Amino acid sequence: MPPRLTQARIEPTREVLVTDELGHVFTLRVPIERALTLYVDKAEVVTLMTLGAHPEWLVIGYLLNQRLVESVGQIESVTVDWQVGAAAVKTLDARPGAGLRDTGRIVTTGCGQGSMFADLLGQLAPLRDSPPATLRQSQLLQILDTVRLRDTVYKAAGSVHACALFEGERLQVFIEDVGRHNAVDSIAGWLALDESTRNPAPVRTLYTTGRLTSEMIIKAAQMGVPIVVSRSGVTEMGLDVALEAGVCAIGRAINRRFLCYTHPERLIRDSAGQVAGAPRPPQPHPQ
Amino acid sequence: MPPRLTQARIEPTREVLVTDELGHVFTLRVPIERALTLYVDKAEVVTLMTLGAHPEWLVIGYLLNQRLVESVGQIESVTVDWQVGAAAVKTLDARPGAGLRDTGRIVTTGCGQGSMFADLLGQLAPLRDSPPATLRQSQLLQILDTVRLRDTVYKAAGSVHACALFEGERLQVFIEDVGRHNAVDSIAGWLALDESTRNPAPVRTLYTTGRLTSEMIIKAAQMGVPIVVSRSGVTEMGLDVALEAGVCAIGRAINRRFLCYTHPERLIRDSAGQVAGAPRPPQPHPQ
Repeated sequence: MPPRLTQARIEPTREVLVTDELGHVFTLRVPIERALTLYVDKAEVVTLMTLGAHPEWLVIGYLLNQRLVESVGQIESVTVDWQVGAAAVKTLDARPGAGLRDTGRIVTTGCGQGSMFADLLGQLAPLRDSPPATLRQSQLLQILDTVRLRDTVYKAAGSVHACALFEGERLQVFIEDVGRHNAVDSIAGWLALDESTRNPAPVRTLYTTGRLTSEMIIKAAQMGVPIVVSRSGVTEMGLDVALEAGVCAIGRAINRRFLCYTHPERLIRDSAGQVAGAPRPPQPHPQ
Repeated sequence: MPPRLTQARIEPTREVLVTDELGHVFTLRVPIERALTLYVDKAEVVTLMTLGAHPEWLVIGYLLNQRLVESVGQIESVTVDWQVGAAAVKTLDARPGAGLRDTGRIVTTGCGQGSMFADLLGQLAPLRDSPPATLRQSQLLQILDTVRLRDTVYKAAGSVHACALFEGERLQVFIEDVGRHNAVDSIAGWLALDESTRNPAPVRTLYTTGRLTSEMIIKAAQMGVPIVVSRSGVTEMGLDVALEAGVCAIGRAINRRFLCYTHPERLIRDSAGQVAGAPRPPQPHPQ
């Protein structure tokens, strides 16, 4: 039985006054980050700073990605209350604090500060698929078009990251948050709820505006997603983990251009995916 | 007496092979993120993922910003050894684990995942300066020029954030790291070492390529820095904290343009700081 969830979506932006370099004063919208303190069976776990677009998915994905719960089946309910800035999770095994004692110390992650990496890398199993799950280059370009044309908080207010999940070229879910880790954790929460009802799971592609660091690739691999696409670049450890885990890491993906860093065998070149014009000189890091 | 420090700077990038959208294979450089596990008086505290440009400053700044030590004077030595990926901190009060027990639970932060915010906001005192510390607009434009012209890991390999500290328009220290929190923590470490020898401290400006979230503003206020400049935008809570703390938050600062979000009285318009040409229409979030 799927967990019971509130639907505590909240307004993501508000107007503020700013002064520009000429001394002109005008209004613009900024994203609203809110503190959401997570309690599992009444024990406090962590405070997340979030845009609050889909806080219940964020909470589920955070618990899964931090290995604080093993599966979505362990969660009885998630209750988000913005009035007190709290998300209360009830597990099926609801001895107070039981979930936390079982998993050992609490670790948080993000922007390279946290110990999740060291703990999880050892547990990471390479994706097993033979023949390998693939994406056609034409589908990748459609994914980039879909992302580019979408009406977003980013377009309205800037300063947020987006993650999205695609099945082939079809958008399944699109999430923005103040941090790229919250965005991908929310995707993981959505995915866990979706996969609890589907067997076998389809081949999916994860899109992120954030960089492909090791933590981002680990989260994709934990979700069983074999293809990860980023508007930004990659770090060496992100690349190493992607190689190891069997993840096709694609970066600098904007409009009709991209760089494939690892496992190019998952990306099938087809005629509709060709880019017109002469080859460009290598550009290591377009902004 | 200042703490004894190793100088364990390490190569920040390496070459990798990539495939572009036309199927061309070529090399480019990517930044190398390394796991650095921090021990204080032999007790493990956290694992940071870092570029490793100035790991000793990072460690000191992390301990200060997380309030795990109260001042740089409490630190006897910082020893970084990349062979084992460890940073060993010895405090003057070196009972094993003493520092950790004194400060309560360990919190980490970054990308909005962590509980530092809730703990620190209550302790944050507004900057006390009367008349207020200021920066001239012409100095701000010189700061932006200095940042733009600098030879950086970002230009060579992308995918890193930079932070820098200025005294007036003069660059004091420039740090890049895989995460913006590591970069600003390294700045905080440098600053703590510098201020232990200077009295009174000069007025400084913090530059960051990252967004001005609440955590970034809190760190600036903790450092006593009254002016923060970002290439990116702001979040609502970053703006609220800046208002409260007396920090002048300036965003979207590229070339000769910027937006001042809070405390415009700290930014003095002068003739050399004027921008030629007609007023532009408001652009809420140029990329």
